[in-house]
Order: sequence, then structure tokens, then C-alpha cells
Amino acid sequence: MTTATASPKIAWGPRVNLDGVENRFAGTTVAPYSPPVPGIDNLGITSTDTFYIPNHGEVVVDFKGYVRVVRSEPTAGDWNRATVYTNLIELYMRGDTVEAGAIAVTLNPDFLSAGALWTPPCDAECDKPAKSCRMAVNAIFHLPRVGMILFNKEPIELTIDDVRSIPPAGNPGLGRIHEKLPLYSRSDPDGPPVADITALKFVMGTYLEPTELECLRQDLRQVLNV
Amino acid sequence: MTTATASPKIAWGPRVNLDGVENRFAGTTVAPYSPPVPGIDNLGITSTDTFYIPNHGEVVVDFKGYVRVVRSEPTAGDWNRATVYTNLIELYMRGDTVEAGAIAVTLNPDFLSAGALWTPPCDAECDKPAKSCRMAVNAIFHLPRVGMILFNKEPIELTIDDVRSIPPAGNPGLGRIHEKLPLYSRSDPDGPPVADITALKFVMGTYLEPTELECLRQDLRQVLNV
Repeated sequence: MTTATASPKIAWGPRVNLDGVENRFAGTTVAPYSPPVPGIDNLGITSTDTFYIPNHGEVVVDFKGYVRVVRSEPTAGDWNRATVYTNLIELYMRGDTVEAGAIAVTLNPDFLSAGALWTPPCDAECDKPAKSCRMAVNAIFHLPRVGMILFNKEPIELTIDDVRSIPPAGNPGLGRIHEKLPLYSRSDPDGPPVADITALKFVMGTYLEPTELECLRQDLRQVLNV
Repeated sequence: MTTATASPKIAWGPRVNLDGVENRFAGTTVAPYSPPVPGIDNLGITSTDTFYIPNHGEVVVDFKGYVRVVRSEPTAGDWNRATVYTNLIELYMRGDTVEAGAIAVTLNPDFLSAGALWTPPCDAECDKPAKSCRMAVNAIFHLPRVGMILFNKEPIELTIDDVRSIPPAGNPGLGRIHEKLPLYSRSDPDGPPVADITALKFVMGTYLEPTELECLRQDLRQVLNV
């Protein structure tokens, strides 16, 4: 349930090749202003999401977890001209709430969450320009204690500005949400939205140890009781 | 090609019933702060879209055309509490460019473009609050002179603030685009983006005469040569 599938309904960008691409964990050297060879980045992540729930109000949840992101071959050898395409292939974040217990966020396999890192055209001639990063993400929000599973239809657009190295480990980012992004219930997917995300701030973490990744995967299985 | 289909890949919101819903044209009376009975609004629209085309640069295009929007039964009888769901069921805008001749924008039938008008929760207790309006739209950009057809995957989020009557005829609106929204080519739909929308400002027009709608539909057929 956490990994991207081969046949999503829709892919938000080009599918990035996974064959033979190496996993990157703690200890990986990252050079600034250098388009790296392809890799699967295993990174921590934290996110503070604000939800609006009708007849209840606003709920702010601090999430912590991991992402696995595969990066494409850069489209050019030099930093200024290189675009790098990305797919989010695995995601788990957990937030604990008083109201609803543990909330687990995983990838929605109906979509290929995808993005890119690129140099804004107006900066392409600068010396060592910052890159921009965007990714369109479809997630599932599991609330096992209250027996609810929510999901977004319109992708959550996650952006990171001022990217000086790839991956942008340690950078803060924003979900670009204007007023609200609707969430739907898995038990009534064609019905009206049941909640909204009204704000989302995240921070990309650094490379994980393989054992940290396994602990987080085990935690997910416990939360979902699978 | 301009109308929404029964079986899109994905619907961005609830499907609004069309059976027995009346068309609204010029002459329709619109009362402020009143949730109206369902209707199909036939409205003019203008939009100024900015595109970024690699190896070419920025192109700003002024579009003009029409929309047909079906509105749901309001979820409540009073203005403050009513949410109204909308589906964009027909769209045509035309922009004429030096570089590529006429550009025709129509609906993408693979998606159900959908949205809502609602009162921001913090304003629900105010006297005569303004509503907000959002719609997620997937379009096709036809460039017949250069033989290109482009489309967006992530929906374009069109928003109108300060809505005092439904429909919000005459209101200005914005496409909520952070840096860029990628466009893909119909001839290589799984490939990398070929252009971006970098900005979008629109103005909802007023109700059309039925003859104006027919003239615009005829213009579309001529532009597309069908």
C-alpha cells in the first residue's frame, strides 16, 4: 500500500527508471551544484499539516516519517541546464492525535506521484543558481482508530525553493494550497469531500540508515495492523 | 471534444446532475446572497495565460470564449451555510498569436473538471459573507497551424474570491500556479513536459445570448476544421 504501482490511473510526470538504480542511505556524499547520477534517495521527512473538519474545526498534526524518491538521469551535465525528474515510490508519515489516535500517511497507488528539479529560466545564466523543486503527490490518510481512510484527488503540490544540491536534504518546503484542498472518504469516493487540508509545511530530512527505514516500515505495519 | 464525458479517468469532485436542469442565458435574474436553484450557466470568459516554451521563451496569450457550468442544489437554504458544487461541462476559448496562429482551448474529456462555492468557515457567522470559488480544470490546447495539441495533467486550479452572487459573473479570478504547471504533448503523453503555464488571470463574463453561444461553437469548429 505504500509503494507506487505499475499501472496507476494517472502519472503526474514521466516515469523514472528503477532498474539497476542504487539505493542511497546515510553516508552518501552530496556535492552542491552538481547533477548527480540516478539514485533512490531514502530520506527522513517531517510535515505539519492543518486539516479542517466540518462540525469540528481545525486540527494541526505533526507528522514524521520517510520518503523514497527515485531520480532520473539529469537532462544535461551542467548544473544550470540540468532538469532531474523524480518519482515518489514510497512514503510513510505518522502523526499522533488526541482526537483520532495515530494517523498514517502513505502513497496512493492509483497515482504516480511525480515531480522535477529545474533551474528557473530567468536564472539559467547565473553563476550557481538555485534550483526549484516540485512534486505532485496523492496520498492516503489512514485513521484506523476511527475507522476512516481519506484521500486527495487533486494532487498536493509540494515545492522546495532554493535547492543547492540534489537531493535537497534539510530544505524546508511548502504544500501550495490556496484556502483548501479537498479530501474524500474511501467509503464514499464519489461523494462530497469530508475534510480539507488547509495548510502544509514540511522539511526534507537527511539520508536514513537502512535500519531506520526498516523500523519505520515496521511501525507502519503496526499502525495499520497488517 | 468540448464537452465532459460520462466516463472520465478521474472526477475532481462530485458529479452534478444534469437531468432536467435548465440552461441560463442573458436575461436571467441573479439575486445577491441567495443560493440559487440548480442551473446550467452559459457565460462568457476572458483569460490571459502566460506560457513558457523551452528554447523560445515566454508567450502571453489573451483568450476569449465561453464556459457552460452546471450548479448543484445548494447544500443549505441560507447563503452562509450553503455549498454549491459545480462541473464545467463545456469550454471554448480562442487566442490568436503571431507565433502559432489561433490557439483553441477546450475541455479534456479524460477528466471531470469540478469545483465548489462555499463560505470560508471563519466567515460563516458574518452578515452577508463573501463566498470563495474553486474549480479544478483539465484543458486541451489545440494549435492547429503548428500541428500541436497540448494538455495539462495536474489540474489548473481556478479560484474566485469575494463571491457575492452565484454565478460570480463579472468577477476576476486567478489560476493558482506556483512557478509553473507542466503541459504535455498529445503525441508523446508519457514523455517530458513540452511547455509550462506560468501565470493565468481570468475574468468570468456575464450570461450569453443563445446566439452568441452558437457563434462561438461555430468558430471552434472552424478553428479545429471539423
